[in-house]
Amino acid sequence: MSTAGQVIKCRAAVAWEAGKPLSIETIEVAPPQKGEVRLKILFNSLCRTDVYWWDAKGQTPLFPRILGHEASGIVESVGKGVTHLKPGDHALPIFTGECGECTYCKSEESNLCELLRINTDRGVMLSDGKTRFSKNGQPIYHFVGTSTFSEYTVLHEGCVAKINPAAPLDKVAVVSCGFCTGFGATVNVAKPKPNNTVAVFGLGAVGLAACEGARVSGASRIIGVDLLTNRFEQAKQFGVTDFVNPKDHNKPVQEVIAEMTNGGVDRAIECTGSIQASISAFECTHDGWGTAVLVSVPKKDAEFKTHPMKFMEGRTLKGTFYGHYRPRTDIPGVVEKYLNKVITMLDFIFISFKDKT
Amino acid sequence: MSTAGQVIKCRAAVAWEAGKPLSIETIEVAPPQKGEVRLKILFNSLCRTDVYWWDAKGQTPLFPRILGHEASGIVESVGKGVTHLKPGDHALPIFTGECGECTYCKSEESNLCELLRINTDRGVMLSDGKTRFSKNGQPIYHFVGTSTFSEYTVLHEGCVAKINPAAPLDKVAVVSCGFCTGFGATVNVAKPKPNNTVAVFGLGAVGLAACEGARVSGASRIIGVDLLTNRFEQAKQFGVTDFVNPKDHNKPVQEVIAEMTNGGVDRAIECTGSIQASISAFECTHDGWGTAVLVSVPKKDAEFKTHPMKFMEGRTLKGTFYGHYRPRTDIPGVVEKYLNKVITMLDFIFISFKDKT
Repeated sequence: MSTAGQVIKCRAAVAWEAGKPLSIETIEVAPPQKGEVRLKILFNSLCRTDVYWWDAKGQTPLFPRILGHEASGIVESVGKGVTHLKPGDHALPIFTGECGECTYCKSEESNLCELLRINTDRGVMLSDGKTRFSKNGQPIYHFVGTSTFSEYTVLHEGCVAKINPAAPLDKVAVVSCGFCTGFGATVNVAKPKPNNTVAVFGLGAVGLAACEGARVSGASRIIGVDLLTNRFEQAKQFGVTDFVNPKDHNKPVQEVIAEMTNGGVDRAIECTGSIQASISAFECTHDGWGTAVLVSVPKKDAEFKTHPMKFMEGRTLKGTFYGHYRPRTDIPGVVEKYLNKVITMLDFIFISFKDKT
Repeated sequence: MSTAGQVIKCRAAVAWEAGKPLSIETIEVAPPQKGEVRLKILFNSLCRTDVYWWDAKGQTPLFPRILGHEASGIVESVGKGVTHLKPGDHALPIFTGECGECTYCKSEESNLCELLRINTDRGVMLSDGKTRFSKNGQPIYHFVGTSTFSEYTVLHEGCVAKINPAAPLDKVAVVSCGFCTGFGATVNVAKPKPNNTVAVFGLGAVGLAACEGARVSGASRIIGVDLLTNRFEQAKQFGVTDFVNPKDHNKPVQEVIAEMTNGGVDRAIECTGSIQASISAFECTHDGWGTAVLVSVPKKDAEFKTHPMKFMEGRTLKGTFYGHYRPRTDIPGVVEKYLNKVITMLDFIFISFKDKT
């Protein structure tokens, strides 16, 4: 029996207070309004961003809230005016949207949609300023327009990417955040050429996805940089050929890398959020053509400093958000690449939990 | 009668000591050796770089020396092995060369030739470490491989661009330095799209050439930024539509420009050498796609500082040298553009001197 147009009762992991354990609750999920989509969420993964906002240190706290943004699911119903999705479509919820109408969406140079750009403070839907979640009449707020730690969630249609139903939803959940952030930073922004050398700073999930981007691009050498030496073995699966732990050297890591590569790498991608790593990533690139890309969000008071001559010598520094991908336009193609075995994502899933209740 | 293979006696403006007036002398110019070219110089213009090295403040002084690098002429003779030039060819001497063989020349991403990259300290020819200039047996040193303040000069063949003989040599002399530096920074590096907004910091010759690049690219609005308001009228000839004097405002100029342009310009080019202008040029670009290009050489102790979030928001910062042009490969095409009236250079020549002796 169709649930379209009705309130759905389902389970969700609710964050009632900052830093307190999530609580599995039965909640109500209102039907999607005009331009909205209700998704049945099937798989979730946990991103550090969820933890950061759950912890709510140094931020405006907004609770109770349903976190979660790296997930996959199936469209349950759609609100008025939604034409690009229909019930049964397989889809990924994306924390940064694509309205398709604003200057950014029309520019082709940006994915920072003016209307649906990530907003970590807003806890309600844009159409009416209300939440679609409640428990016994008490409103529960949204998170980054996705709130996927719920069996059902409501999103703006611009935050939903329709994907090929042949894609295994458990595997492609990571596409919706971490994978694209790193992979896109390499293939869409750093754009290494075949046989280039690439340095990746930080070998967490985003960094490994950046390495995968370098591998797919045909890089001849991929230098992984991390303070944790035990990450190197795993990183080899993503094409990493050399490992540098800055702690092992008594000179700046950019000098170590420049010496290893006859003057510097062709491309560098920074995935740690450390400002010092950002500066090193830029300065370890080769003069003439070196390009560095900053991926991770830096601290509020961070300052990027370098000698301007580093630029004059032909280097480029770029930043990117979500790998420069536009959710509705580009994400279906990333899933196709996975289906066509151009890229691999299986090894990103190290641990999986199964609901036993 | 051919002068090939012989020492030529001619006049040159010799800098005998730092900061002392140049002296017109009769000197001897030795024949070109293997891989070298002797040029008869017909026109010169004066670039601030000549003045800077003549003044020799804070640099290793190398005197006596023949300065000059923005010029045009005709090939008088060539040394062994030179095949791309022959006597009679019209040519521009270029202070930064293209050997065609090194990693940089082969990369297609760079014009910083490893062998012939600008060198302000070297006063001799690369082939034998000797100078080709002398007066009564006393050697006179070269400057940046060009030394065009002489009726005849000897250059490495990689520093000579062969151009269409239909080009008026008096007009195209500026192509060999200032024009390409600014024009190329815009068209080769900033690459504005039609209808983009472009800010150019500094309306000297290089900045005006950058404006010309924006005009040719179809920019809808070109904002000239300079501390000298009287430069605006002249700048209009190069397409400048708006003028901003930072002194007229009590807030940072990047904020003034962002307000004028609904969030920032699409492209900015910095042509002043001021580190503060470099930071402003970067920060006045629009988030999502803004690109700033640094052209001018900064002071030795300058430090570029900005919040890394400015990059994360989708901005790009690049530096460039000589407008990313490779002398032998690209410069003939720039001259063609002038001949085809795609670009204008006439108005760069504000004052011309004629030799009356």
